Amino acid sequence: MEGESFLDMFHRLTSIGWTPETGVNRLALNKYDIEARNNFVRELTSAKADISVDDAGLIFGSVGSGKDNIAIGSHMDSVPNGGRFDGFYGVMAALQMVKEFSGNTGRKRITAIDFTNEEGARFQPSLLGSGMSTGVFSREFTYSRKDKDGTTFEDALKSSGYMGNSENRVTKQLFSRFIELHIEQGPVLELGKYQIGIPKGIVTLIINNIEFTGESNQAGPTPMEARKDALVAASRFIVEVRNLAKLSGKDVVMTVGKLDNYPNAYNVIPGKVKLNLDTRSPDIKTAEEYSALAKEISRKIADEEGVAVNFEKQWTTETTLFDEDLQKDIEKACIELNLKYKYLYSWAGHDAQYMNRVVPTAMIFIPSHLGRSHTKEEYSSDNDLLNGLAVLRKTVQNL
Amino acid sequence: MEGESFLDMFHRLTSIGWTPETGVNRLALNKYDIEARNNFVRELTSAKADISVDDAGLIFGSVGSGKDNIAIGSHMDSVPNGGRFDGFYGVMAALQMVKEFSGNTGRKRITAIDFTNEEGARFQPSLLGSGMSTGVFSREFTYSRKDKDGTTFEDALKSSGYMGNSENRVTKQLFSRFIELHIEQGPVLELGKYQIGIPKGIVTLIINNIEFTGESNQAGPTPMEARKDALVAASRFIVEVRNLAKLSGKDVVMTVGKLDNYPNAYNVIPGKVKLNLDTRSPDIKTAEEYSALAKEISRKIADEEGVAVNFEKQWTTETTLFDEDLQKDIEKACIELNLKYKYLYSWAGHDAQYMNRVVPTAMIFIPSHLGRSHTKEEYSSDNDLLNGLAVLRKTVQNL
Repeated sequence: MEGESFLDMFHRLTSIGWTPETGVNRLALNKYDIEARNNFVRELTSAKADISVDDAGLIFGSVGSGKDNIAIGSHMDSVPNGGRFDGFYGVMAALQMVKEFSGNTGRKRITAIDFTNEEGARFQPSLLGSGMSTGVFSREFTYSRKDKDGTTFEDALKSSGYMGNSENRVTKQLFSRFIELHIEQGPVLELGKYQIGIPKGIVTLIINNIEFTGESNQAGPTPMEARKDALVAASRFIVEVRNLAKLSGKDVVMTVGKLDNYPNAYNVIPGKVKLNLDTRSPDIKTAEEYSALAKEISRKIADEEGVAVNFEKQWTTETTLFDEDLQKDIEKACIELNLKYKYLYSWAGHDAQYMNRVVPTAMIFIPSHLGRSHTKEEYSSDNDLLNGLAVLRKTVQNL
Repeated sequence: MEGESFLDMFHRLTSIGWTPETGVNRLALNKYDIEARNNFVRELTSAKADISVDDAGLIFGSVGSGKDNIAIGSHMDSVPNGGRFDGFYGVMAALQMVKEFSGNTGRKRITAIDFTNEEGARFQPSLLGSGMSTGVFSREFTYSRKDKDGTTFEDALKSSGYMGNSENRVTKQLFSRFIELHIEQGPVLELGKYQIGIPKGIVTLIINNIEFTGESNQAGPTPMEARKDALVAASRFIVEVRNLAKLSGKDVVMTVGKLDNYPNAYNVIPGKVKLNLDTRSPDIKTAEEYSALAKEISRKIADEEGVAVNFEKQWTTETTLFDEDLQKDIEKACIELNLKYKYLYSWAGHDAQYMNRVVPTAMIFIPSHLGRSHTKEEYSSDNDLLNGLAVLRKTVQNL
């Protein structure tokens, strides 16, 4: 049965480098990612696919020679201590399509893609491979990115054996459509008992860098009234911003995920705290409004605490809207397969975001148990994995 | 003039390893601390002092052979990016006493001491050398302490050249009194225009380790209502505990100086936060009461935020009360010198704390400008340095 062989392949290949304690540590171009790439190429080879690699390390495996050149893919790299489903599922599903349609593509050409460094966990920013391959990032910028040990993306790519040719970039391959199958990474589908999600697009993301500067002093001898405690100011900010988003009644989420406290000694009043604020909304105006409200909050708190604050926008990724025709094709497949689906937004970035700039693009989501993602507890049932695969297959057949 | 030669020696020797940008980085037994020790020994030698070193690395330099064996001292190690006055001032003042009284001690013997690893910045806990030399810490415990690179205290001591003999420990030297001259490290004296502080003792210190455990998830796809954000819980705790202490109307300070956030990525909801709460009060019951209130607060917040909390007492250092007669001797010296003095508590730990267990002990404080300490901005005026020295000299003369 196709389903069983797919599940067998998926579970076998994503378990390499995984342990129940550590989750998956398949960071971009590390030994586990390279092993995953080698396995992907081996499977493509046995499916008699034409294999090419571009100069951002994207791997393409194509079957058929029809004019309707359909690309399907995702990424195999993970965050540290990540889950086994994120990204990997989409690449295995793309591979499965190549296998199933091999020698029988009709007027289509079907290409499975593995994107490089989607997570941004090893090289920042995220979506680095798709960004370069679609022309969003220059080669110079991309190649000069360094991991925490100082290794450049260029060197990591060269030593991985996956340095390919610029002639193979996405922009040269004339794809007619791109579809990315992915886990939701949130709880919405499971809570609503939906089997499939159809993203209308990807929300706006604004990242602000905030730095509170107070006065570092010995904890004991400095009376409470004389303190300029940067961590107290940052803590008030974190709580107020959370309350702002939670009570807004709007489609907006705000998160402080990263916080660095200085000098970070138990007996020293913190003199400096650096943090990032992540603000997302399907509506760019809402995201900008709430980002501006957070700036006001940071200033009010800084005044009250006698500390200085520096609030700087690091970047904005504007809302991506996927191809409406392709969304309808996916909806049609859901209806034909009698699967309960829901239109929604993707609240996380995906390679589909940059692909959407150069080729009509859409995504298919399957439920994530308890919405857990980027953690070893990440889980989607075999049934959900097969439902997503069926919708992908049906959509491709119908195209 | 004695004052000028003291100031010249003090400023010259404490500037080694100091830059205006970095402050002092004279961590225990690092190259700067060893250089400071070598200079201390050189100066003691030219003052014709008997020099001995014990097996905790304490350096003793004695002049005279009277029965009244007065010890004076402090430490030369610093925190990272520390100030030039903390500790070093007290050692230089002790050295100055040895120089001034050399050949003229009368019925006294005067011993200058440099304590090892007071700060606890390289090897934890703090007061490690005085703790071992006074029998509070065992040799096994002390020697096995490791710095962040894995070097043990024992190895660092051996390679510094300052591994001495257990026969020289404080407990074997039969001191009659111990006096430590130190900067206040707080703003109280300066604000009240006092020239000298006389600590009645050292406040109780309770350290609690607190760990909030929520659920690490992708920032975007997890709705605000579905979050179990450990950093939001920790932030609420930090703010509420600060407000508790600030509004208490009691003599208590509470500080969260150290906070570690996991996994600490801008786009991941924090799943775990570890922090330390430092609670101090002259009254041990007040310190215990407020530490218990903080525990209740942590539980209330954990319940409300849907996270788990683990609140554990790491250690308690009970209030130290210094020798009352020696405090009066210091007061008498202040009166004779016409200096405005104030009785107060030391809100920070000092080697005097452990010395007080084995020998009648007191301290003398001088003002710290703006109360800054453990930072490169730490500052006490030459005038204040000389006032403290004069009180020390007069006290020793009067004994």
